[in-house]
Amino acid sequence: MLGELRVELAGGAAYPVSLVGPGAADVAGWVRAVAPAGRLIVVADSNVAPLYGRALSEALTAAGRESRLLVFEAGEASKSARVVASLWEGAFEGPVDRGDVVVGVGGGVAGDLAGFVAATLMRGVRFVAVATSTVAMSDAAIGGKTGINLPRGKNLVGAFHHPVGVGLWVSALTTLPERERRGGIAEVVKSAVIAGESEVAALEASSAALAAGEPEALAAAVAMAAGVKCAIVGRDPTEKGERALLNFGHTFGHAIEHASGYGEWTHGEAVAAGMMCALRYGVAQGLTPPDLVGRIERLLATQKLPTVPPSLSLSEWIEPITRDKKRSGSNVKLILCRRLGRCEIVPTPIDEFVAWLGTL
Amino acid sequence: MLGELRVELAGGAAYPVSLVGPGAADVAGWVRAVAPAGRLIVVADSNVAPLYGRALSEALTAAGRESRLLVFEAGEASKSARVVASLWEGAFEGPVDRGDVVVGVGGGVAGDLAGFVAATLMRGVRFVAVATSTVAMSDAAIGGKTGINLPRGKNLVGAFHHPVGVGLWVSALTTLPERERRGGIAEVVKSAVIAGESEVAALEASSAALAAGEPEALAAAVAMAAGVKCAIVGRDPTEKGERALLNFGHTFGHAIEHASGYGEWTHGEAVAAGMMCALRYGVAQGLTPPDLVGRIERLLATQKLPTVPPSLSLSEWIEPITRDKKRSGSNVKLILCRRLGRCEIVPTPIDEFVAWLGTL
Repeated sequence: MLGELRVELAGGAAYPVSLVGPGAADVAGWVRAVAPAGRLIVVADSNVAPLYGRALSEALTAAGRESRLLVFEAGEASKSARVVASLWEGAFEGPVDRGDVVVGVGGGVAGDLAGFVAATLMRGVRFVAVATSTVAMSDAAIGGKTGINLPRGKNLVGAFHHPVGVGLWVSALTTLPERERRGGIAEVVKSAVIAGESEVAALEASSAALAAGEPEALAAAVAMAAGVKCAIVGRDPTEKGERALLNFGHTFGHAIEHASGYGEWTHGEAVAAGMMCALRYGVAQGLTPPDLVGRIERLLATQKLPTVPPSLSLSEWIEPITRDKKRSGSNVKLILCRRLGRCEIVPTPIDEFVAWLGTL
Repeated sequence: MLGELRVELAGGAAYPVSLVGPGAADVAGWVRAVAPAGRLIVVADSNVAPLYGRALSEALTAAGRESRLLVFEAGEASKSARVVASLWEGAFEGPVDRGDVVVGVGGGVAGDLAGFVAATLMRGVRFVAVATSTVAMSDAAIGGKTGINLPRGKNLVGAFHHPVGVGLWVSALTTLPERERRGGIAEVVKSAVIAGESEVAALEASSAALAAGEPEALAAAVAMAAGVKCAIVGRDPTEKGERALLNFGHTFGHAIEHASGYGEWTHGEAVAAGMMCALRYGVAQGLTPPDLVGRIERLLATQKLPTVPPSLSLSEWIEPITRDKKRSGSNVKLILCRRLGRCEIVPTPIDEFVAWLGTL
């Protein structure tokens, strides 16, 4: 099923989203197929490099393709201008030209960072995303959004730069820390809420298997989410409209991550609590059916994901949200859920929103 | 004449290249027309800010448009990852959203830097280029190439990001240091060589007036060069083919700038000497007519531009050239001149090229 997924872009361009692995040599074969020429610069964090990045780079070299590995320190803090600069310089420590390819291996951070390096190296080289985390497979690796954080907020700098292929290295999930694996399920739940009743029902049915980390349930869940993402990105490649729905839960989630200093809460945990905020705000506005709160709360709780935000001050909520890219004038564009399969962008006056935050 | 120039991009998009000024209020009126909504972030260096950047920002504010000024230290050394990071952070020191606009005011450095900030801020906001130097008016501001330098070479990082308008603030040339004004004429000469016999003859005819900095001669010269650039960029917006011809003289020029540490030689001076290298190499290859060397040499010498490169070691020449983006495999892509109006990309084996450098 997954081998058939493609992101179709305007103008007839398209790229595959493929199940890859299980061995590094298998992944290398797929990378060679989606990027048939050029040197390869494999970018991975300090956790993923010894497990998968180095093996992939060596498998590429063994297959006759010039390949190098660049490693950055694991953690969201590496999505920084400083680390980008060190990767730019690292790329030029060996021979490199415009025909070369950046291969990002890892989770969301590796994809965003390596993708931004690819977008900007020599004004843009090809990018291949190899996802090894649930977050990356179900969401982050697909869609061409790349970027870094600034001290003032997440993803404030970046570029749209579509990969030439996205590989989902599902067997790598076996070595993913349990907390991160669960965090990725938050993105899967988000995709199901956007997609509709049958997707949410399927997750409810496999809820226990997912919580236990059963490989088949995980593969089916990330495949569902990847399919939702591919379809939406294909209709809206640069986030001018519908694609913004994929940020459901993320506006609140970013505030949670920001206030907790990026790291105490994983991205997925922040998104889980963020979705619950968005649902509850929607109920308060008379827009979201109240029963939805309970259903999604149970789904997230079964995955041991948080369903309430940490205790934040009003300014901790507001500062990152009003600085968010989704702000426009004196409104915040919240994504709210009218029913499963029907989320909407709702421009919300900041005052009204602040008043509700005061009730949290 | 100039008011009519436009860069026509694929897909029907286009942007104007306009003569603007003489007063800051006039320029502000033009900026408001090409970017009719959004807050404005004016970016200028420490020389241009007090002369033009602050006045433009204040004129925009006076006209009812929210505007802020960000200043960076003048000099090519500011085209760095460090300064880009400080501008990214500076942009978020006030309210900012995706509907806002970055306005770069100044020479080539301001345009490249502000353009790259615009390309990457919130994954891309609108950019307006206001050129105040001969280099920027005749070449750098037009065409959407943005970027910064790395310790290993020039423009190794960047993005293609077309402005919504390019303003040529010709009256600002009166305060440009004479050496920089002359340096820009090197780009004008380059454009004439690419364009053809009549453009070179026109420069030869106005050579003395140009050297004396006569405003009408300068305006006509930058208008000619801007026209050449608009036409080529319109046919090749992302430098996949013909546009590379605009790098005539630049491969050698970058090596000169790199070896002299960016600053001892101005960009224009390095390009002047670089063009002479490219012409002489073309003659040595039996490709360039020998009389062209004398004609262009006289034209440059009249503008007090250097016509021979500094004494560089082989490794000083080779290292930046082989690291250049124009390298592909074991060839260097040199741009050589078969006759006026007919420059060509000539893939040159590195060995052959090195042997010739040894004769310099």
